[in-house]
Amino acid sequence: MPGVTAAQLAELVGGQLIGDARREIVAVAPLEGAEANCVSFLANVKYVSLLTSSGAGVVFVGKGVARSNGDVIEVNDPYAAFVTALEYFHPERRPAPGVHPHAAVAADVELGDGVTVGPGCVIESGARIGNRTVLEALVFVGARAVVGDDCYIHPNTTLRHRVELGHRVIVHAGTVIGSDGFGFAFDSGHYRKIPQVGTVVIENDVEIGANTTIDRATMGETRIGEGTKIDNLVQIAHNVRIGKHCVIVAQAGISGSTILGNYCRVGGQAGFVGHIKIGDGASFGAQSGVSQDVKAGDVLSGSPARPHSLWKRIEVSLPRLPDLLRRVKRIEERLAMTSEAKESEHGR
Amino acid sequence: MPGVTAAQLAELVGGQLIGDARREIVAVAPLEGAEANCVSFLANVKYVSLLTSSGAGVVFVGKGVARSNGDVIEVNDPYAAFVTALEYFHPERRPAPGVHPHAAVAADVELGDGVTVGPGCVIESGARIGNRTVLEALVFVGARAVVGDDCYIHPNTTLRHRVELGHRVIVHAGTVIGSDGFGFAFDSGHYRKIPQVGTVVIENDVEIGANTTIDRATMGETRIGEGTKIDNLVQIAHNVRIGKHCVIVAQAGISGSTILGNYCRVGGQAGFVGHIKIGDGASFGAQSGVSQDVKAGDVLSGSPARPHSLWKRIEVSLPRLPDLLRRVKRIEERLAMTSEAKESEHGR
Amino acid sequence: MPGVTAAQLAELVGGQLIGDARREIVAVAPLEGAEANCVSFLANVKYVSLLTSSGAGVVFVGKGVARSNGDVIEVNDPYAAFVTALEYFHPERRPAPGVHPHAAVAADVELGDGVTVGPGCVIESGARIGNRTVLEALVFVGARAVVGDDCYIHPNTTLRHRVELGHRVIVHAGTVIGSDGFGFAFDSGHYRKIPQVGTVVIENDVEIGANTTIDRATMGETRIGEGTKIDNLVQIAHNVRIGKHCVIVAQAGISGSTILGNYCRVGGQAGFVGHIKIGDGASFGAQSGVSQDVKAGDVLSGSPARPHSLWKRIEVSLPRLPDLLRRVKRIEERLAMTSEAKESEHGR
Repeated sequence: MPGVTAAQLAELVGGQLIGDARREIVAVAPLEGAEANCVSFLANVKYVSLLTSSGAGVVFVGKGVARSNGDVIEVNDPYAAFVTALEYFHPERRPAPGVHPHAAVAADVELGDGVTVGPGCVIESGARIGNRTVLEALVFVGARAVVGDDCYIHPNTTLRHRVELGHRVIVHAGTVIGSDGFGFAFDSGHYRKIPQVGTVVIENDVEIGANTTIDRATMGETRIGEGTKIDNLVQIAHNVRIGKHCVIVAQAGISGSTILGNYCRVGGQAGFVGHIKIGDGASFGAQSGVSQDVKAGDVLSGSPARPHSLWKRIEVSLPRLPDLLRRVKRIEERLAMTSEAKESEHGR
Repeated sequence: MPGVTAAQLAELVGGQLIGDARREIVAVAPLEGAEANCVSFLANVKYVSLLTSSGAGVVFVGKGVARSNGDVIEVNDPYAAFVTALEYFHPERRPAPGVHPHAAVAADVELGDGVTVGPGCVIESGARIGNRTVLEALVFVGARAVVGDDCYIHPNTTLRHRVELGHRVIVHAGTVIGSDGFGFAFDSGHYRKIPQVGTVVIENDVEIGANTTIDRATMGETRIGEGTKIDNLVQIAHNVRIGKHCVIVAQAGISGSTILGNYCRVGGQAGFVGHIKIGDGASFGAQSGVSQDVKAGDVLSGSPARPHSLWKRIEVSLPRLPDLLRRVKRIEERLAMTSEAKESEHGR
Repeated sequence: MPGVTAAQLAELVGGQLIGDARREIVAVAPLEGAEANCVSFLANVKYVSLLTSSGAGVVFVGKGVARSNGDVIEVNDPYAAFVTALEYFHPERRPAPGVHPHAAVAADVELGDGVTVGPGCVIESGARIGNRTVLEALVFVGARAVVGDDCYIHPNTTLRHRVELGHRVIVHAGTVIGSDGFGFAFDSGHYRKIPQVGTVVIENDVEIGANTTIDRATMGETRIGEGTKIDNLVQIAHNVRIGKHCVIVAQAGISGSTILGNYCRVGGQAGFVGHIKIGDGASFGAQSGVSQDVKAGDVLSGSPARPHSLWKRIEVSLPRLPDLLRRVKRIEERLAMTSEAKESEHGR
């Protein structure tokens, strides 16, 4: 990517340059380690001391943030300006369109304009791939699956039969969409498989991390709402419905038929039991364990999940519990009371 | 699949039709959303109100359950009848037998009758694949591995050298069987790899979810017992032995050399330390942490895992702990006692 | 592998044979189940009773450990001797060098001497593969990625563009290195992707388990230090830095920009929030949840993680909490005090 002048950069992000208009900028870098031909950003005034020490040629700052020893571009949102600059200097890599000779594409597959099918990809009968979509390499697309326009499917992923992806969906490497739900009926001493005949629908603008698994519905569909972002190694069980614009951090797991509203945020390694309903905008701390319906906007932590402020008070109190036992015993002695502890409760 | 009459359906599931014998049924559906040409089921009388409002043409019900406005088929087990109907309307998809030209199969591999080897599959020297088994696409089968009859191996899976799968085993996409166990000896400031020279044995009728990992034994074998069902993203470490007909839910992890009996149930995200022994029929709540031997039939929850009823009492008591600290302090003041709290215990 | 005499075996491990020098040994086995042509080992005197009952032809033992009914080889470290014997009897399998015709290797890829590129592998433009490295099958190596000498990359793995692996690195099946970090800016009601333009550097002698994910940095690099061992299904987020000779057990997760020192040990299913700093040699119990900086050498457990000894005291005290509530109530009644419990705190 060719460099730009500081003035051009200011125009790109809709900001106000205070400094040398002709300075050439060739890269984006964090404040620490940035050089004179780099643009950096200060999003949090907590780090304002880095502003002075940084060698960055120019820095995106909020209105009125002063930098004694260098140039700035004042913007409304320094972080958004930084993302825009990143996008400019690092445009998305898209391989050239075409079907690689090492791909196996069934005769009746519909490929849109400008599609890339990389080496080792397998596309089964009746599948449809939208315009400009990239299947990078070693991607499996099952029979009658549908992938929309401008999607990017990374290597070694599996999109099983009949799953549907909207437009601009990104699926990272190793992820599996449409695996059978985990459903068995216990019958005469063994588990009998319940056919999983539903599917998975991924709406527009969803991004799914690496080695994540999204099971198909028993009947009907598992659905991921528009704009939702899912991290690596996440488990989404059959018939789950995730709303729009949710964020689900790595290694979280959501059990069957649970429904999340829009704008929910789920921390890493959090777990949800099945068949519960989570209101819009609810948020869950890392490692929380959610076993009941949750109201819109609730902020929960811990396992079992409780209101975050309550969980914080419990956390602070817990280390005092061993001592508390001794204190109560001392009080009982003083009052000549017996403790009446039931030993049977002090189990393992 | 062609439709059947309600009378034929009743015969298929061994039930008693109360209603129109000639009604045509073409699909299975849940009570909500079912149409007049669908069969549905009522397994739990808790949902009996759905029975009246459902548009299903006919519904599998238990003996004596009345449906004022529609037809029913009375059966002993409505859920089992529903599974039978699902199987009838959705027979398993099996690709045509044969070896795809984009597969790489070593010259001395033994392929049974009616085997499917899909595009991109790799089968190394000395492997044996049983009759009618399907390797869907991009499946790796290592040297001298053995896969039994009627197995279904989904895309992008890895079955490493010498692992053995019984008959009717299902392995979902992205799963790895026979990866090296995590074994190192600390020696002179660095970790030295302990060769993992054992293998993995998967018995008949096991189903393994997507992106799960099952490590080979250091010496001897890691073994998964007949009929056991394992969900997605589960970790089974080296030398673990799982009994027959267990259920292990997504993201659970079992550390090295731990032994589970038959009919154990392990909740999602539960973890087991290594070298412990779990009795038959024990069951473990989601996110439980198991660090000791467990007796047959025990029901445990929490981390560290405790008897479920005890854990429930602890859970209920915990929110009262912050207030309890204040109450005890007030008692001490009343009695003019010092609290003698040891500050050193109130750590982070 | 041909057998050796007990005398040759003693020489191999630098030990002192007490027994029949000409006995032929053909395999390594645990004490239980070992036969007369096997060598076994006793590393922990706790299991000394197995020494007498074992059928092993010869056993590696510490200095001065007597075996009444059989031969021994005295060594300084019986476990290390056992590993040496395992390595001798099970030399690493390496497929023959060469590029399989079913691989897709870009024209400008640099392959070192003796490299193996298995069937189904895809290597993109500008990548470099070091001497004697094995890409087993169905491995994806992205543009300009660098893999050092003597690496072993197992099937169905993805090494994305520009990632760098040192020498003697082992990557197990299904693992993804260089997936995009999970970074989004919330803007006008939706999440905007932050380009992840950094990379991943894996230093020498690192081993990474199966289906693990290591994200590339937003800018700069995610780095795994020399000699570190990572188990299966582990999540390493963008810009994380792991020191040298750490051990990270299965299903652990480390959030963005967190830094671990050298010789840290992380238990299974443990989780770390982002942007914290962990000192050298710190160790973390299974399922711990780490949300603050940790000093060198600290030993923590629990969620939130606390000093291990404190956590143990809390664990032991917890089952007594329900009874403690009753005891304090009784004291209050005796003193005619009200409990003043705030019901609002007894939430879910």
